[in-house]
Amino acid sequence: MERTSKSTGLVDQAVLKLREYILSKGYNPGDVLPGEIELAEQLGVSRTIIREALSRFRMFGIVDSRRRRGMILQSPDFLKGMEMALVSAWLGAGTLRELFEFRLMLEIGLADLLFEKKSDKLYKKLARIIEREDQAGSESERMKADAEFHSALYAATENQTLIRFQDILYPLFKQYASEKVNAFPKPIIDHARLLKELETGSTASFRLAMRHHLEPHFQVQSNETDYSEL
Amino acid sequence: MERTSKSTGLVDQAVLKLREYILSKGYNPGDVLPGEIELAEQLGVSRTIIREALSRFRMFGIVDSRRRRGMILQSPDFLKGMEMALVSAWLGAGTLRELFEFRLMLEIGLADLLFEKKSDKLYKKLARIIEREDQAGSESERMKADAEFHSALYAATENQTLIRFQDILYPLFKQYASEKVNAFPKPIIDHARLLKELETGSTASFRLAMRHHLEPHFQVQSNETDYSEL
Repeated sequence: MERTSKSTGLVDQAVLKLREYILSKGYNPGDVLPGEIELAEQLGVSRTIIREALSRFRMFGIVDSRRRRGMILQSPDFLKGMEMALVSAWLGAGTLRELFEFRLMLEIGLADLLFEKKSDKLYKKLARIIEREDQAGSESERMKADAEFHSALYAATENQTLIRFQDILYPLFKQYASEKVNAFPKPIIDHARLLKELETGSTASFRLAMRHHLEPHFQVQSNETDYSEL
Repeated sequence: MERTSKSTGLVDQAVLKLREYILSKGYNPGDVLPGEIELAEQLGVSRTIIREALSRFRMFGIVDSRRRRGMILQSPDFLKGMEMALVSAWLGAGTLRELFEFRLMLEIGLADLLFEKKSDKLYKKLARIIEREDQAGSESERMKADAEFHSALYAATENQTLIRFQDILYPLFKQYASEKVNAFPKPIIDHARLLKELETGSTASFRLAMRHHLEPHFQVQSNETDYSEL
């Protein structure tokens, strides 16, 4: 993460003050917060500044303004900022590599959750995707099926935070996956074998199978490929 | 993630328009963006609105204003929003559970990266932490050493995104870890055994050891504990 500037303006300071104020007062989601005028007074900032700070809070979904009811504290959408800011062209090569590593960790680490939730319905879904992959007429069709297979595993965990995180990360690696990973030999452990491990193996054997399946991705990582053209 | 409101105001729309505009024009980090007046014109919004949208972009570190140079596109700090919004009191019980699962996945998944970077220096560091843990005079001292051990593993991956993510998540589970996990029997695989696996084992054996080490956490998860008091 390359943070260059430290320009903590008045609004940035007000944002931190406001967060501290809400925490110290013990407000819970659903509670109505004081109005702009009172908040400005309490925090010792101008109304313009508090308005801008609140606008940022609205963006994160930390507060919501409702006509007649005022400002309500909410359960924040904490992935919103990531969704806005994660654009591959805006990220440095190092950060992209780190995010890719992050994703590999999750794919290997999700075995336990997956085994807790696995079902015949999931096996059938995965089998249909594998069938489509085998019959794919083009590379893009095959890649689509590949992405669907992995997405189905994430979806099966029923962990909405993980699923959304994955949805946000996926577009970053689309080009990466097609150009770099395909330059490596196909993994010995294919999707059919992963499905078999899911049905009849253990979490440990599935993790190991997934690790082998992802081998080309790990190869790409350790080869210090130049990602700057992403 | 509980998103209740869909109040997409003028600023929210302007934020999306501005993001689209910057992407479509192919600006890269370091590039100077057009001024407020031109942006307002290009996007067909008022200057007040564009100013607020830019303020949000500044918060994410997507842009930075510099005197004389104007607004510069930057490599965004995409975890900033998460850092602001992740407050355990603001999150629902379901989201906290999901984030905890997420963290367990990462701890198990980080073996590959860790083995790539492991060194005598790391072994010594971990051994010192284990020593401190063994000699801890109080539960809080023991817990501090426990947290340090796991932090040292994250730090050893040298993946800054992962390390920061972990730093953001950690405070959420502080209370959780102390109250819930300690109600379960101590794991058979302790830190000394994890260190031994790191030194002499394989990534697969380390993953398995870590999974066993985290067993109390998985128990807590599957027992559908009530997290509402967090």
